[in-house]
Amino acid sequence: MVKVKETVKKLDPYVPGKSIPEIAQKYNIDPETIIKLGSNENPLGPSKKAIAAIKNSLHLISQYPETNLEPLKEKLALYSGVDSSNIIIGGDGADEILDVLGKTLIEPGDEFIVPLPSYMYYEFTLKIHGGVPVYAKWDMEKNELDVDSIIAALSEKTKIIFLCTPNNPSGTLIDKEDIKRVLESTDALVVADEAYFEFSEVNNVDLIKDYDNLLLLRTFSKVFGLSGMRIGYAISNPEFIEYMHRVKPVFSLTKLSYEAASAVLDDMEYIQKSIEIGIQSREFLYENMSKFDKLEVYPSKSNYLLVGVKEIGMNSSEFAEELLKRGVIVRDCASFKGLDEYWVRVSVGKMEEDARFIEILEDLIG
Amino acid sequence: MVKVKETVKKLDPYVPGKSIPEIAQKYNIDPETIIKLGSNENPLGPSKKAIAAIKNSLHLISQYPETNLEPLKEKLALYSGVDSSNIIIGGDGADEILDVLGKTLIEPGDEFIVPLPSYMYYEFTLKIHGGVPVYAKWDMEKNELDVDSIIAALSEKTKIIFLCTPNNPSGTLIDKEDIKRVLESTDALVVADEAYFEFSEVNNVDLIKDYDNLLLLRTFSKVFGLSGMRIGYAISNPEFIEYMHRVKPVFSLTKLSYEAASAVLDDMEYIQKSIEIGIQSREFLYENMSKFDKLEVYPSKSNYLLVGVKEIGMNSSEFAEELLKRGVIVRDCASFKGLDEYWVRVSVGKMEEDARFIEILEDLIG
Repeated sequence: MVKVKETVKKLDPYVPGKSIPEIAQKYNIDPETIIKLGSNENPLGPSKKAIAAIKNSLHLISQYPETNLEPLKEKLALYSGVDSSNIIIGGDGADEILDVLGKTLIEPGDEFIVPLPSYMYYEFTLKIHGGVPVYAKWDMEKNELDVDSIIAALSEKTKIIFLCTPNNPSGTLIDKEDIKRVLESTDALVVADEAYFEFSEVNNVDLIKDYDNLLLLRTFSKVFGLSGMRIGYAISNPEFIEYMHRVKPVFSLTKLSYEAASAVLDDMEYIQKSIEIGIQSREFLYENMSKFDKLEVYPSKSNYLLVGVKEIGMNSSEFAEELLKRGVIVRDCASFKGLDEYWVRVSVGKMEEDARFIEILEDLIG
Repeated sequence: MVKVKETVKKLDPYVPGKSIPEIAQKYNIDPETIIKLGSNENPLGPSKKAIAAIKNSLHLISQYPETNLEPLKEKLALYSGVDSSNIIIGGDGADEILDVLGKTLIEPGDEFIVPLPSYMYYEFTLKIHGGVPVYAKWDMEKNELDVDSIIAALSEKTKIIFLCTPNNPSGTLIDKEDIKRVLESTDALVVADEAYFEFSEVNNVDLIKDYDNLLLLRTFSKVFGLSGMRIGYAISNPEFIEYMHRVKPVFSLTKLSYEAASAVLDDMEYIQKSIEIGIQSREFLYENMSKFDKLEVYPSKSNYLLVGVKEIGMNSSEFAEELLKRGVIVRDCASFKGLDEYWVRVSVGKMEEDARFIEILEDLIG
């Protein structure tokens, strides 16, 4: 047997998630009726312009994708208010950008800081490169970043600090002044993960020109409605972006993903409507879930809500399974470090899905 | 400025290739008439079943792809004559599998062996993980692997040995006895890159059960006609495959790539026709290019031919540019280590494209 790296032997074995057909079969539900509130996707479905662009390019799928993504970068630059030299595009969503950050910055033993709870994929990806997670704290009482805990976690070995804003799963924003304080405390890269920024109507692109250790991480998987096409991007200073390009896979963005990404950026009507529906659904769910005494619902600036379920006498896995039996998928947060076993995350849905979900909650815990 | 890894600073800056529209504009050619013999793609275009499968799944592109690829693995297992536990699927073609090998096996300073000339992406990818290339030799006189040079290159630090069969760009197979000799000389992983095996009608899957240090690397980009969808796979022993799964990106295969891959495996008629056309075109090109005294054409068991152009009084870049002006893209091999500046690689085309290419050659060097 070949000699596998020790770090890989220490990683958790891979367990694939259950697919919709598997869930439907296990609980004997019609897959078409399942309400998906688990993955922070766009409940509107994809942009019609994106679908049309894909259809127009189907004859090209036997050819390699173009390696020159400049036209798409220019559209993103316009959308974001930066220059195309500030942009890199990832072909496996923002997850590829995270991997590229590992390749650009992390040597075995280097540290990265994650306040808990936050997005778990940072740790999954960076550990593979030999990175060592150092945990800081998201203050769950105030639902805000504990900035002091970040500053206290800094060391000579710190290479990256992850600040997710709005934070996944807790839903609130990090104050711009707090981000600046972190940026000014270190030469390490500060990643502001803005996957959900459109739902908060706030972002940090204005800091790019002043801080060369800032990178904004973004995705086409949320408001742009293209999770299945795996497109992400990042914004940083051109010198750092150029280094990232040296290690980025050359062909990872599929031909059809490129065309879909380009088309959705021309579909401002869809983007605007997606933001509106997302905010409307979030506020509806917040208001109506808050009526249940047994649920602790956190206010959110994103397209999901963190919900504490301790009072209902089930842990999150049991509660999520009860909902599954009734055809609703929510995210069991048991695997989020920094949360105990009594939290679920509920993504926005279509208004009729939200209403049905509230009815199901009435039945289950009302 | 953040501290970028020294290995990254030493990598070559990224230079994107020219796109078809750029080439068309530069040389004032109708892009529809360009003959693409540069990237070893399938000249038939994509399978109609793959296109139909994509069309049927367009409504799902706003959802994350399934993480459970088991049904696709089972189809590949049947196609390949192994068990699904022997298989891992890559979401950026075989390139992702190479990256996963780096993550599973390579620590900074570890060595990997590549006989030259061979596929350059091995080196591109493994260097990013801190791997050090050690070069062995492809004997260009005999057009066969110099096995002794591989054995001589082995060291305590060797982690991977790349054996491309048929070899890209030289086109011929590595003898199975030579592969066995390498396998028996080392505990390092021996990667037999079988990207083009269908055109040779030979493969090494029979060795999988006997050698736990063998991995077969394969792709949907060649005979399966799905280069633009970025799908690859590898076959090895289940224990090693499980370790690879621990570091593989979870969502990298797009939803549409999954559906296209699954559909083309149901389209044996297309696959069979692709093999036939590939071989027919290769033999036509070999026969007709061999008629030019100034060209040195290597026989091939793949879907491309290596051609020496020294006698025509141009180097490969000049020759490739003359062909570009006439609307034909071939691969200038100047960037392949182990070859001097007088080689191009010509991929198979449609029969009418091949005939037109031969006419253009007549005009240019006849």
